Amino acid sequence: MTNWIRFRDAEGRIGFGTLDQHALRVLQYDGSLFEKPKPTNHSFALSEVTLLAPCQPSKCVALWNNFYALSQKLDKAPPKHPLFLIKPPMSVIGPDADIRRPKSYQGKIAYEGELGIVIGKTCSNASVEEAESAIFGYTCVNDVTAIELLQEDPNFAQWCRAKGFDTFSCLGPTIATGFDWRAAHVVTTLDGVERQNYPLDDMIFSPAEQVAMVSADMTLVPGDVIMCGTSIGVGSIKDGSTVDVTIAGIGKLSNRLAA
Amino acid sequence: MTNWIRFRDAEGRIGFGTLDQHALRVLQYDGSLFEKPKPTNHSFALSEVTLLAPCQPSKCVALWNNFYALSQKLDKAPPKHPLFLIKPPMSVIGPDADIRRPKSYQGKIAYEGELGIVIGKTCSNASVEEAESAIFGYTCVNDVTAIELLQEDPNFAQWCRAKGFDTFSCLGPTIATGFDWRAAHVVTTLDGVERQNYPLDDMIFSPAEQVAMVSADMTLVPGDVIMCGTSIGVGSIKDGSTVDVTIAGIGKLSNRLAA
Repeated sequence: MTNWIRFRDAEGRIGFGTLDQHALRVLQYDGSLFEKPKPTNHSFALSEVTLLAPCQPSKCVALWNNFYALSQKLDKAPPKHPLFLIKPPMSVIGPDADIRRPKSYQGKIAYEGELGIVIGKTCSNASVEEAESAIFGYTCVNDVTAIELLQEDPNFAQWCRAKGFDTFSCLGPTIATGFDWRAAHVVTTLDGVERQNYPLDDMIFSPAEQVAMVSADMTLVPGDVIMCGTSIGVGSIKDGSTVDVTIAGIGKLSNRLAA
Repeated sequence: MTNWIRFRDAEGRIGFGTLDQHALRVLQYDGSLFEKPKPTNHSFALSEVTLLAPCQPSKCVALWNNFYALSQKLDKAPPKHPLFLIKPPMSVIGPDADIRRPKSYQGKIAYEGELGIVIGKTCSNASVEEAESAIFGYTCVNDVTAIELLQEDPNFAQWCRAKGFDTFSCLGPTIATGFDWRAAHVVTTLDGVERQNYPLDDMIFSPAEQVAMVSADMTLVPGDVIMCGTSIGVGSIKDGSTVDVTIAGIGKLSNRLAA
């Protein structure tokens, strides 16, 4: 397994590389993350850089109702095709960046800890096998929602608006390649107290199935992220509180809702 | 009023410039369309180039229920805030490019003739006055929809999926600056037969109001497009049929649904 990060150094330059999670050292790479990146001879301590979102999606495709436990709790039948909305590029932030409350919104803001699929190859109408090979790796996601907007209008569920605000797509800290999602759990804590701890093998559509089926709906390009949906334990974040989404092997994604 | 186009020339180079609608000649510009572009000395006949979508949106924000005539027909109250979904960058095509039926979908495909607002300045939480000055110009839109997918799942209206397919956001042929939308109509024809002809002054949220209110929901960046929503007269397109969306002053956007 390899852990890829994107970072800004002390001089403001943006780069990427691999992270040694034990030594907390970074080996910098050159080129493009998705096209045979080349290692440089430059390595340094993780503490010397600021982590950024590990990729820059042209779109985030966020699934709803993709875990059996949640579909049972909501009493909704499992869908026959991934149900999704699209979150815009400007919604993305990286590890330790603040989630910002929209100026126009005073209501509840919810966290949703999720697995994120990072696309590595352009794909369209992919088979499940092709989809599997188009997956570059996996990251942690906090899919933030201005929950009171969702049903504000009785005629139109405002999924894109409620989830599309700047800073509402937290991604990171790393992209793990060669990651076995079947054995992993998503653990979400709110100010250190565990709120979600669910197994990824409870997913309705597997990552490769999601990529295949969504690629029938739109071309996916390198860096795009599919947010696999959340399971039970979603709750709201008070201003000033911190949400950590941890998936063993990927790392801990920590973001505070700015007070 | 100035009409801006983007084009590919015979050598495959992509450029942009202004179009003289009467002489059908193009004056090429250099630099960025949204940052003081500079005229070159190069001009040529429109027939020498292939028109492309006039801008490359990072996102298209598509409104629903934004015309009084349609809201009355649907018997839905006018919304208090723009109701929207997001269409991804890969959904965009330009004039005369074919709309492609999704391989996975055999149902009805609908046209929606609309006005498109092209953003010229980054804006966030803009006032209506600031929003007005952030509008670069206007284009024609055919907001295509795989209509039978919308209500396929009883628990989740699939707006992003039904409207997000590759080729489902037709834009062009020009971006008109200094365009008076209040005096204009959107005219949509299907194989030459008029199907929509509605006045833009029937809009619920004006363009500047749309930009201001949507900019409270997400940062808008140069090249982004807000699709203002459609009015009455929407219908379906048979494979092989051509839809033209015409707004006097902007031009005629023509796209065929590939047979």
